[in-house]
Amino acid sequence: MAQEIRLYTKYQLEEHCRVNLEGSQAHYLINVMRCEIGDRISLFNGRDGQWQAEVTSISKRSISLIALAKMRGQSPSPDLWLVFAPIKGKSELVVEKATELGVSKIIPVVTRHCVVRSVNMEKLEAHAIEASEQCERLDVPTLETHKDLSHLLGAWDGNRKLLYGDESGKGTSLTKVLNDMKQEKIAILIGPEGGFADDEFSMLRACGFTIPFGMGPRILRADTAAVSALACVQSHMGDWDLQPHFIGNKN
Amino acid sequence: MAQEIRLYTKYQLEEHCRVNLEGSQAHYLINVMRCEIGDRISLFNGRDGQWQAEVTSISKRSISLIALAKMRGQSPSPDLWLVFAPIKGKSELVVEKATELGVSKIIPVVTRHCVVRSVNMEKLEAHAIEASEQCERLDVPTLETHKDLSHLLGAWDGNRKLLYGDESGKGTSLTKVLNDMKQEKIAILIGPEGGFADDEFSMLRACGFTIPFGMGPRILRADTAAVSALACVQSHMGDWDLQPHFIGNKN
Repeated sequence: MAQEIRLYTKYQLEEHCRVNLEGSQAHYLINVMRCEIGDRISLFNGRDGQWQAEVTSISKRSISLIALAKMRGQSPSPDLWLVFAPIKGKSELVVEKATELGVSKIIPVVTRHCVVRSVNMEKLEAHAIEASEQCERLDVPTLETHKDLSHLLGAWDGNRKLLYGDESGKGTSLTKVLNDMKQEKIAILIGPEGGFADDEFSMLRACGFTIPFGMGPRILRADTAAVSALACVQSHMGDWDLQPHFIGNKN
Repeated sequence: MAQEIRLYTKYQLEEHCRVNLEGSQAHYLINVMRCEIGDRISLFNGRDGQWQAEVTSISKRSISLIALAKMRGQSPSPDLWLVFAPIKGKSELVVEKATELGVSKIIPVVTRHCVVRSVNMEKLEAHAIEASEQCERLDVPTLETHKDLSHLLGAWDGNRKLLYGDESGKGTSLTKVLNDMKQEKIAILIGPEGGFADDEFSMLRACGFTIPFGMGPRILRADTAAVSALACVQSHMGDWDLQPHFIGNKN
């Protein structure tokens, strides 16, 4: 379907407020989408809902808009976190998919067998924003700076269950884990391609808030595992009973 | 975890049979893995289980092995099909993930809004084989040559339910669709990024074997939708109660 232009902005949005976009957003609107004065796009900021805004002026590197009317009220995203070990060349993909699947927070975690030990947060954030714009979310997941596994576990709020993919094969099936859960706060933890180290497994098992899970007899790549686990959580206890906001307007 | 070398071959596997590998498999073993005479690898062909084989001779472009012993008996993959509209630059990714998620058959389908209208079957098959080798499957999903949607629907065996992602937002949530199903044969159909055309929706709705489904309020990209839907089917009625075959051998 032909989709409207939706852009995330950090600015406050309210009636008649002016928003000035620069950098890549201005480039996109001016040079890619060839926006002209009077064109209308949608803006959201994660707090004030979605606003229709009109282009009021265009210069070489910036574009000004005025917010006209609120089209959708702010609705919360599911309270679901993803903790994942960065994957060479695929961390952006994981962030994009996790955003589409509605996670509220993403935390990269470095473990012993990680091939990638640093994370380009700016790049990940750009992917989270773009995915939010595309998938009709009204917010962007929070991206935390990466931490070591031990640091992450040490500072963990025990009220949130940390479900970790146990690629040793010893975890209970994710289906059963989710069936047995009440409406609890959840984070999914997916380790690196090389798996968790023995002492990391010990650390994980020693925590009162962790639950190991498996996803069947085939060994999933880390990015497949992340997407699959998040989809299952959303299917089991997320917001899949809701429909896209445009329902009724299109086909 | 350090994984053994597992390769798919079309040859029959039985005790003491000789297998000669050429082309990219020979290149991989000789130049990438630096195999030497006496080294052992695993072979599977989708019929005879997994065999341990020993390298008996190496030439510049081929490598010979002898099958020593059957290490795993052949076990069937779940009877789950994926029908998907090819996605620019991402069809290989979809085939890879679908293979990991255990589909038995993959059918590319061309619809009105497909940007990609032809499919490199050889490339897709290579990805299916590589994913099978990596994920510990004992078979490779069947890849059918691509067809038009009308042709596909016209020749469909009505005993298999075709669950199609209804990006118009009008489908019942996939969770509910799966909860309401008995142990039926299933295929998942994911349309192109541009969505199904109106007459395609009409065609789909007119078939007795189709069920539209939704996956919540966010618009998933086609590749995310394919992976998410397959994961949910496997979680609901697939083989996730099974564990990887090495369970007990490794941490």
